[in-house]
Amino acid sequence: MARAGRLRALEERLRRTIPLTGAMAVQVTEWDDEGLRLRAPLAPNSNHHGTLFGGAASALAILTGWSLVHLRLGELGLDPDLVIQRSAMEFEVPARGEVEAMAIAPDPSRWDRFLRALDRWGRARIEIRVELWAEGSRIATLRGAYVALTPPV
Amino acid sequence: MARAGRLRALEERLRRTIPLTGAMAVQVTEWDDEGLRLRAPLAPNSNHHGTLFGGAASALAILTGWSLVHLRLGELGLDPDLVIQRSAMEFEVPARGEVEAMAIAPDPSRWDRFLRALDRWGRARIEIRVELWAEGSRIATLRGAYVALTPPV
Repeated sequence: MARAGRLRALEERLRRTIPLTGAMAVQVTEWDDEGLRLRAPLAPNSNHHGTLFGGAASALAILTGWSLVHLRLGELGLDPDLVIQRSAMEFEVPARGEVEAMAIAPDPSRWDRFLRALDRWGRARIEIRVELWAEGSRIATLRGAYVALTPPV
Repeated sequence: MARAGRLRALEERLRRTIPLTGAMAVQVTEWDDEGLRLRAPLAPNSNHHGTLFGGAASALAILTGWSLVHLRLGELGLDPDLVIQRSAMEFEVPARGEVEAMAIAPDPSRWDRFLRALDRWGRARIEIRVELWAEGSRIATLRGAYVALTPPV
């Protein structure tokens, strides 16, 4: 399946299985060798200041990192259980508009180590960096550690 | 205002100003000297495994820590801008039921330092620990750093 088809399948899967992605109006927008981009409008994700609610920012960032690893594994025909284990987020400036989340593709050597560990042990961890941008400024950064686990056959 | 009234006012404020709290069906349940408890059902906050979506867990924890600081300041007649600056979360086990978030009251000496700094500089930071529990087990822990900022008069 080409990447465009995988993106549509991902968005459909998120909407069907994670109700909050509907409430947040998350859209899957772009995937290339640099990473994966998701987008969310401000209104359903805003707070009492009329800026982006920190909890929504965190949810969007966690979801974007997860989605990148899920897509990359899917390209290889792999679909292990994939969960977030740890996250650290810096909230840099308030966001006053639509938010774009960018999960940055890990460099090839880290990705290969992750795949080898998953193949060998049935369990592997990878850290993904996700940046959130709004109106031309970076507004937050997440480092998320995701664990993939191949269920026993 | 008694604490019960402040809790109801908080829930009403969250629902009115942070749309995602409605989508998550967050309830403000209890506040005492140990801390503040919020609760959310699993269904609107679940993922493709039928367990709690990590993004929803993170949003609930960030909200609970914010709410505790907001309530404690409100008791003193203070209502500064209050935002999350940094968060670190450990996802320990999957949650398969309703989730309770407990923001743990900071010890008095840390709280007093926070108040003194806010009074003196108009800006202060405090770290709050939030635990998430489901079906009798702790499922995740957040450390959130919140910044209070008194706008210039």
